Amino acid sequence: MLSITGGVNAARGFSAASCAAGIKYRGRDDMALLFSSADCAVAGVFTSNIVKAAPVLWDRDIVTNEKTARAVVVNAGVANAATGEEGLRLCRETAAFTGNALGIPARAVLLGSTGVIGPQIPLDKITSGVAMMKETLADTPEAGTKASRAIMTTDTVNKECAVAFDLPSPDGGSVTVRLGGMCKGSGMIHPNMCTMLAYLTTDCAIDQAFLQKALAGVVQDTFNMITVDGDTSTNDTLLVMANGLAGNTPIVSEGQSYGLFREALFTVCRSLAVTMAGDGEGATHLLEMRVYGADTKEHAKTLAKSVVSSSLVKAMVFGKDANCGRILCALGYAGVDFDPANIEVFLEGDSGRVVFYTGGRVQAFDEDRALALLSEKAVRFSCDMHMGSCEATAWGCDLTYDYVKINGDYRT
Amino acid sequence: MLSITGGVNAARGFSAASCAAGIKYRGRDDMALLFSSADCAVAGVFTSNIVKAAPVLWDRDIVTNEKTARAVVVNAGVANAATGEEGLRLCRETAAFTGNALGIPARAVLLGSTGVIGPQIPLDKITSGVAMMKETLADTPEAGTKASRAIMTTDTVNKECAVAFDLPSPDGGSVTVRLGGMCKGSGMIHPNMCTMLAYLTTDCAIDQAFLQKALAGVVQDTFNMITVDGDTSTNDTLLVMANGLAGNTPIVSEGQSYGLFREALFTVCRSLAVTMAGDGEGATHLLEMRVYGADTKEHAKTLAKSVVSSSLVKAMVFGKDANCGRILCALGYAGVDFDPANIEVFLEGDSGRVVFYTGGRVQAFDEDRALALLSEKAVRFSCDMHMGSCEATAWGCDLTYDYVKINGDYRT
Repeated sequence: MLSITGGVNAARGFSAASCAAGIKYRGRDDMALLFSSADCAVAGVFTSNIVKAAPVLWDRDIVTNEKTARAVVVNAGVANAATGEEGLRLCRETAAFTGNALGIPARAVLLGSTGVIGPQIPLDKITSGVAMMKETLADTPEAGTKASRAIMTTDTVNKECAVAFDLPSPDGGSVTVRLGGMCKGSGMIHPNMCTMLAYLTTDCAIDQAFLQKALAGVVQDTFNMITVDGDTSTNDTLLVMANGLAGNTPIVSEGQSYGLFREALFTVCRSLAVTMAGDGEGATHLLEMRVYGADTKEHAKTLAKSVVSSSLVKAMVFGKDANCGRILCALGYAGVDFDPANIEVFLEGDSGRVVFYTGGRVQAFDEDRALALLSEKAVRFSCDMHMGSCEATAWGCDLTYDYVKINGDYRT
Repeated sequence: MLSITGGVNAARGFSAASCAAGIKYRGRDDMALLFSSADCAVAGVFTSNIVKAAPVLWDRDIVTNEKTARAVVVNAGVANAATGEEGLRLCRETAAFTGNALGIPARAVLLGSTGVIGPQIPLDKITSGVAMMKETLADTPEAGTKASRAIMTTDTVNKECAVAFDLPSPDGGSVTVRLGGMCKGSGMIHPNMCTMLAYLTTDCAIDQAFLQKALAGVVQDTFNMITVDGDTSTNDTLLVMANGLAGNTPIVSEGQSYGLFREALFTVCRSLAVTMAGDGEGATHLLEMRVYGADTKEHAKTLAKSVVSSSLVKAMVFGKDANCGRILCALGYAGVDFDPANIEVFLEGDSGRVVFYTGGRVQAFDEDRALALLSEKAVRFSCDMHMGSCEATAWGCDLTYDYVKINGDYRT
């Protein structure tokens, strides 16, 4: 598997556009359009929040009932959440206008919104934006990158990723398949199905049922293992569109090709998810917690997520303070049974490793060495549970003054 | 029921002392001693964290097996958590020294520690402190207040409370019973059994089994309904000591006297718990969320706690930003099933009420009026679920720059 450029435009047949529709932000693009020249099998996972934004309801209906799509329209600035029947009507209008403009059915248009909860989206600005973007659709890497910038809210960096891999072709040879994607997300990040807006595109030929199966599995160890602030958004959406233009022998079972595709999907999802965690609102560090030697995978995940979710651990990473008892504390209240006397906790990084806790007590350690490890951009803790052979990794970020600043005054 | 002064010294037969033992803090008292002139029935609830501090293990053993006690020794600065067998040995030594000094059994001495996780407590300073305090034990309100100050860590105010109420006496008349207490707690506050250190004293005559039953019940709606940062401490301890000196007819069943005692216990616990929430690390506001019209009490509690635990809600309260969609979002991911179209969300306060959400969508509201309500010291949200008649209230505080500052650099 090769890492390649192009993001959402990496796969054949996909093009992208963006524009400044003036929805909330000034002086920057705030809408993106993705388009496939051929019909796509489409799979998706959505927020588990009871309060689901209108575009989430729209997309879920398309994925469940149509199972195919051709385009995605995304806006940043207004979430179209808690907007009632009027919000749903504006989704239908947006899809109808876009379908008409692109010459495809309204129900081949997926929608995404991110921003403030409550206000209605300004339909005139949205449709003007779609009309503009239709004229500038391009399949270049640059157009993909611009689209990934247009969907940002409090993100400080755009997030895209793509890979290429080979699959068998019907003539007995092999063809190169491409899979790429973009996402946005910085606050209100605590995935429970998936997190925030993420759009993946591939030219792989794959049956929709297997596309959905692969996505639902991969999300558990990638987007669902990150957190910024413990708040599961009303708008979380992860979509993957597969147009089949690579010409591989279509994937219709769980054989070797499915395995290769799933591996590529995992790679792209993990890369996007970890980038999102490290770009959490106000973050200065990526925070990683690996739990191994656990008795079950579920326990390993619960323990790892408890540590990266702890406000006290997050604040100590910001302050580069090796207050290692807080990691032990967060493991202890995770709700998983273990014997504190039998576990070991470490701080690890490029410059070495420090043993924080073993033999039932916090250990004396070299403070300078710990400070060096806590000064790396990615701060990595690990824990050996000594109970079995299961492991999991969770990602988050530190808690900083800027998180409070950003979220104390978000609407203005 | 009357609110009275005196805190832990309000009830007959109790005396308190404090001293500067120099354990971590300089220029302030950091140890407290409580003493009862008569044997006390003792009840307690302790942290649900798997990692339990040594004094928690000690106290739990005393409450479970002895069921009586005479004294409590508390230190601030070092938590004696994650300290292994050595930490337990230091508990035994402290209790033995204190018992010897006060002329009571070592196993009549309860212990409490709060502060940094990891280091061992300095036994020489602890025993010197006990020797000093033994000489200054006093049953005055001032001595009780000084004790409540001595156990503070990042708290900005001391926390104490007491009430008096009448119970029947054996001669057919009635006697006045007193119940008071003190607590400390500001960070690492997310109770799951109880929170941080709280010590209650009463001169009520009550059987230990009913004392424990009343405490276990009351804690569910008081200390277990507050949160500061979602971190359940290793040291959480709530103890109540009842020496019977009021001379009431002993409570040995769940009759009217038990009901009156339980009501007093509830009043004191709620007062201490709410004060603790409002004094959360760095807090500038108390945050209250009342959920009513819920189908079950458990659902009401889960929903209320989800809102006061949300980093985004906490940050918006700090910023006085009426970003009401965040409350809806936090209700939505609480894990309780409901129809978003049927609930109503309000902001309430001394100066009136604002309707945030009804009929399935966020409402237009008067921003100036919302700002006035958000500027009150206690910020109160409520939600009518329109599903039944159960309700619950949870308390927390806002998320501020100072929380990050305090916890980014706690050890130094």
